Amino acid sequence: MSNIENTKVNPKLPLSKRFKNSQPYGAPVLDLELKLNTNENPYPLPAEVKAEILEELSQKLDAVNRYPDRLQVEARTALAKYLYEITNVAISPTQVWAANGSNEIINQILLAFHDPGEIALGFEPSYSMHKIISEAVGYRYQAVPRGDDFSIDFEKALSVIKRDNPRIIFITTPNNPTGTSTSLGDIEKILQVATQSVLIVDEAYGEFSTEPSAICLIEKYPNLIVSRTMSKAFAFAGARIGYAVAQLETLAALGLARLPYHLSTQSQVLAKVALGNYQLLQGQVQKIIKSRKFLMQQLRELGLTVIESDANFFLFGEFTSSQHAWQALVDESILVRDVAIAGFLRITVGTEQESHLFIERLKGLLNNKIILK
Amino acid sequence: MSNIENTKVNPKLPLSKRFKNSQPYGAPVLDLELKLNTNENPYPLPAEVKAEILEELSQKLDAVNRYPDRLQVEARTALAKYLYEITNVAISPTQVWAANGSNEIINQILLAFHDPGEIALGFEPSYSMHKIISEAVGYRYQAVPRGDDFSIDFEKALSVIKRDNPRIIFITTPNNPTGTSTSLGDIEKILQVATQSVLIVDEAYGEFSTEPSAICLIEKYPNLIVSRTMSKAFAFAGARIGYAVAQLETLAALGLARLPYHLSTQSQVLAKVALGNYQLLQGQVQKIIKSRKFLMQQLRELGLTVIESDANFFLFGEFTSSQHAWQALVDESILVRDVAIAGFLRITVGTEQESHLFIERLKGLLNNKIILK
Repeated sequence: MSNIENTKVNPKLPLSKRFKNSQPYGAPVLDLELKLNTNENPYPLPAEVKAEILEELSQKLDAVNRYPDRLQVEARTALAKYLYEITNVAISPTQVWAANGSNEIINQILLAFHDPGEIALGFEPSYSMHKIISEAVGYRYQAVPRGDDFSIDFEKALSVIKRDNPRIIFITTPNNPTGTSTSLGDIEKILQVATQSVLIVDEAYGEFSTEPSAICLIEKYPNLIVSRTMSKAFAFAGARIGYAVAQLETLAALGLARLPYHLSTQSQVLAKVALGNYQLLQGQVQKIIKSRKFLMQQLRELGLTVIESDANFFLFGEFTSSQHAWQALVDESILVRDVAIAGFLRITVGTEQESHLFIERLKGLLNNKIILK
Repeated sequence: MSNIENTKVNPKLPLSKRFKNSQPYGAPVLDLELKLNTNENPYPLPAEVKAEILEELSQKLDAVNRYPDRLQVEARTALAKYLYEITNVAISPTQVWAANGSNEIINQILLAFHDPGEIALGFEPSYSMHKIISEAVGYRYQAVPRGDDFSIDFEKALSVIKRDNPRIIFITTPNNPTGTSTSLGDIEKILQVATQSVLIVDEAYGEFSTEPSAICLIEKYPNLIVSRTMSKAFAFAGARIGYAVAQLETLAALGLARLPYHLSTQSQVLAKVALGNYQLLQGQVQKIIKSRKFLMQQLRELGLTVIESDANFFLFGEFTSSQHAWQALVDESILVRDVAIAGFLRITVGTEQESHLFIERLKGLLNNKIILK
């Protein structure tokens, strides 16, 4: 069916040159049995958290005729408390700022620091929205390739940063789609050189990693903004809550770039209640980490290569054709992600049952030489 | 207390030149008895609508670990049905597109059609976010002053459009903060000349007006986008649901500029359920229109000037100093809006009881010559 994502813009309209060759971003939506393609958390919202959300909404919706709290005080207070619990870093609510998904956080940052001709730099492969949002806002996007093991080559990175003085630098850790982490020490190497840049450390998958959060560096570096999300660890992809952590005098720039009242009353309630129940939701994170280890081990036993990962997904291969392998899995009602890394596919860690089903069907495909490695 | 809105950006950071002299937009938040400053609907959500929202959420939150429907099919289907009911224009769900408030709709449009150096043109005074978002995206904003009666001078408008070829033209009808409407005939005059521009007709207050919606023109003009909101007529300011109505091949441009999954599961539910109950909510609109007439009449009887309005607010004056009159009302625990139109203030139409209280206190201020006219 025709829709906004598969329809060409009327050529009579003055579409921005930026979008002339664009396609709308978004994973293919296929209604298959195993959806292991968008790094969602496989566990539904616990019943007690849902009940508390509905109770709180029942109160707050009585005032939905009024604009939401523009300063999101309750949600940010809950975020600061949560971050203290998991990082032991004393974060003030004024050092946190929420939006509709970390995409909107990144958009606000990019807009706040944008001037024509400036560069946004990322280490690729990485989360593709960084490039897409950068170019939409008007940056030149510069991709610095990661090494063969998908780590950042810091010698190269530092020399490129000194030479090109990017306005924005992205470090995604754990990195999507590769799962690799960047250590705090390495992040500081960048911060010490890139004093004219704003460094966005994207920790969307931070809760699945054993590396400490870059949040502990914000006191020291005004040009560091840590971007995080509730989509993954809180099983909240549908709720669209992302947040930034930085010094107040840094977040003030986002206050200039944000659309007023961007975060609805209902979203503020969902964030606050889920954060208040973080221990319950962290239990799911531990289950996913355990599943990741199991799944990686199983794939290794099938003779496949897996790339070590600190996230709720990982790359596996090598296939003679990742496109062909992707399609063969789709034919088995399994949706994984082809992230354009030759020979590899990215799989999101699902439930234990999903892992077993996946292994079984993949084994069949390999044994019958439908997928070749 | 320090917060993101009253804190200066660290001067060491590379803040965009665009924001160097900006202040965060947002009405002053004062906890007064009568809040008649932000054009909110004074009536709370009807209990039966709230119950239905909570019931539907109870289902949909079970899948909140999954990303929301990127194409918002249920919400858009409900919007199309509602628009057909109130305008009698057959709108397909593919001709409607929702976002977090009409601010985000306008932002998506402006981004989709932006190229450096292009002009966005509006007829001022008007909704101040048009200028703010235009400049944030990178347009040069051109204000064409309205006439003494706040109507658009079409001879001047057409000659400016021919001369400057703006990429974007805004018409707000009913216009905020003046309440004046622009007729469909006048909108067509602009469309016939501005074939190279995208015309945004902002109908945020459309339901309070007797003028027909510009939605009936979308079949004819691919460069027309009608922007509307559920904030006012649906008493849904906290829910942040705005929407665009245009041809599918026009909305496809917004599909390129939007952040993926921008509208959360919970927001889609709220929109859908409230739209399904539109008749209940339209009853409130009729009450507000009645109150508006009453309040205007009362102010006229106090010897004040009121500007005719098709919205849920109107301008009243003339005061020797609108700043002074604003403060005197604040001292009586009444918050109205100073919209920088000399001698006038803007009042939102509240409940009947609020209107009576307002009249009574204003009368006192005038009688005691605390407010001078």
